[in-house]
Amino acid sequence: MNNDRVFNFSAGPSVLPEEVLSIAAKEMLNYNNSGMSVMEMSHRSKVYESIISDAEKHLRSLMNIPDHYKVLFLQGGASTQFAMVPLNLFTKYKRASYIDTGSWASKAAKEANKYGEAVVIASSKEDNYSHIPKLDPSIFPKDVDYFHITTNNTIYGTRYTPENIPDTGSTPLIGDMSSNILSEYYDINKFSLIYAGAQKNMGPAGVTIVIIKEELIGHAMDITPTMLDYKTHADNDSLYNTPPCYSIYMCKLVFEWLIKQGGLAAIEEKNKYKANLLYSYIDNSTLFKNPVAVEDRSLMNITFITGNQELDASFVKEAAQKGLVNLKGHRSVGGMRASIYNAMPVEGVEKLIAFMKEFEAKHK
Amino acid sequence: MNNDRVFNFSAGPSVLPEEVLSIAAKEMLNYNNSGMSVMEMSHRSKVYESIISDAEKHLRSLMNIPDHYKVLFLQGGASTQFAMVPLNLFTKYKRASYIDTGSWASKAAKEANKYGEAVVIASSKEDNYSHIPKLDPSIFPKDVDYFHITTNNTIYGTRYTPENIPDTGSTPLIGDMSSNILSEYYDINKFSLIYAGAQKNMGPAGVTIVIIKEELIGHAMDITPTMLDYKTHADNDSLYNTPPCYSIYMCKLVFEWLIKQGGLAAIEEKNKYKANLLYSYIDNSTLFKNPVAVEDRSLMNITFITGNQELDASFVKEAAQKGLVNLKGHRSVGGMRASIYNAMPVEGVEKLIAFMKEFEAKHK
Repeated sequence: MNNDRVFNFSAGPSVLPEEVLSIAAKEMLNYNNSGMSVMEMSHRSKVYESIISDAEKHLRSLMNIPDHYKVLFLQGGASTQFAMVPLNLFTKYKRASYIDTGSWASKAAKEANKYGEAVVIASSKEDNYSHIPKLDPSIFPKDVDYFHITTNNTIYGTRYTPENIPDTGSTPLIGDMSSNILSEYYDINKFSLIYAGAQKNMGPAGVTIVIIKEELIGHAMDITPTMLDYKTHADNDSLYNTPPCYSIYMCKLVFEWLIKQGGLAAIEEKNKYKANLLYSYIDNSTLFKNPVAVEDRSLMNITFITGNQELDASFVKEAAQKGLVNLKGHRSVGGMRASIYNAMPVEGVEKLIAFMKEFEAKHK
Repeated sequence: MNNDRVFNFSAGPSVLPEEVLSIAAKEMLNYNNSGMSVMEMSHRSKVYESIISDAEKHLRSLMNIPDHYKVLFLQGGASTQFAMVPLNLFTKYKRASYIDTGSWASKAAKEANKYGEAVVIASSKEDNYSHIPKLDPSIFPKDVDYFHITTNNTIYGTRYTPENIPDTGSTPLIGDMSSNILSEYYDINKFSLIYAGAQKNMGPAGVTIVIIKEELIGHAMDITPTMLDYKTHADNDSLYNTPPCYSIYMCKLVFEWLIKQGGLAAIEEKNKYKANLLYSYIDNSTLFKNPVAVEDRSLMNITFITGNQELDASFVKEAAQKGLVNLKGHRSVGGMRASIYNAMPVEGVEKLIAFMKEFEAKHK
């Protein structure tokens, strides 16, 4: 690692592979002998078309996305998807099931209420979102247009494991995968639509990936803005208007890096190794604890507290002085949070644990 | 200039200042001793907040934007503004006046018709959009919520000169300035709202600038998605959700470059010099001609034809071989188009003219 760089535990935007940043820097003034930066290219040029089609091809291969799903590169973040999902999918009942596993899941439901009814069928709010509600599929309403979950909850450090994805039968399952897409293998076939902002595991903020079954496209409400209709983008291979070209290029580089790492199987193994290192240490610590139900723990965002706010603040401050930065928990929950996305090297987690041990020895 | 680089006449995304790209490359792995790339920064970090607030400050200073206008950094391009403008401004009459000066102006009107009525009060369509309609303010409807123009028409190479901006009295004037923002001095006070995609004169695609009078904010229709309500972004200084951080950083660098060039007065002089070089040559050429009304000529996009499609194709091809690329006209009009945005050096225009002369000598 470049010695000037810190270990960045930010929840998002977040660490990117150093190797990818180096390629981007090197290609900044002249991409692949085109004589120009990717930022300067017409989105309708052959050279750019090969960038966006490679990005799609790599993502399809990494996630094993079947042909009857479209892959779209959009703008506006997950927050825009909170509206696009109901605007496009409220076709029959104008009602959908939402599971409330945190602040983002709750915002998604609130936005859907503008266009119909978001039925919150389960919530872990009363337990400070420290677990994923256990669901009995027999209670799932049938008269809904879709069923929405947030697969990883960045703020609280919980996740649906791949085994725990609800079986919603014939009701389309929608997953906000913003903070754990590409971190481990989920079976796409369980979902009808997956969306994710790029700024955790894919690239810079400014591009949102949507993976959507073709049959869900083309039924948007009349009031849907053209740019918020999935059909607009599906019909034009994400080139209806100028897409966020450079951010898509960065995603392509990250996808190539992931493939070089050995694909999702290898990155999943590495992520489990990193998370396990940190959880094991915390579980054996007398100073730090993690408040999340063991079976629902996130591989990406690991929260921990000392139980003493002043001590938490000292920890965050002293860690930063050692080049371990952005460890402060979300303002709504306090404590600490280490976001260890795909691009966080094992070395970063080891250094963090070494510092936690040192801190614990001083404060026990 | 770096010898590996071409002169890129693309209409957008388009040429950026080489100096800016060099800074971006240099700072890619470590911005200002933060130990990380701008792409990796939390949008809520102090270091990033200073980037976005500097970007706003520079833009305000360059364009002389009064305090009672908000500056927003949004996503979705001008195409999303086509919906946001009516969704936010159709407050009383649910009707607006549009001037049809080209394909983008026409798309804007079409989108507004989803939410009310877009009255096209003048059009130059019958003349292939080769001029800006002359407007008599006495015909402007009073019972409209706003009046919409496209200040520069990229495809046809026309523009409203600063003197020719319609006086709409108490009706708010909305300007799509995507392809000529920051190219010359327009009096902001004539407008109530200006929007522009970044990818011509400001930075990479993926960020849209909106400059809006405060009094227009907060009256969106109920059906407006939260992310399409100007109030959402105005109340949160463009940080309601994760903004397109890196694209905004690039805009900041471009604004700094503009200030170093001497600001808008200097860039306007340079742009007029470049455009005049090219128009003068074309006007004196026996081979090439420009179809646009002289008083409405764009400073940014200069169209020209030989009148012979095969010859046009040869020109585009041979020019590319000499490193003068992306000179093909828009597919809807054919011929050639040289987009000479702020970042196109005088040298690029001189080289283009030298090649045109050479080509003319061979084919007269």
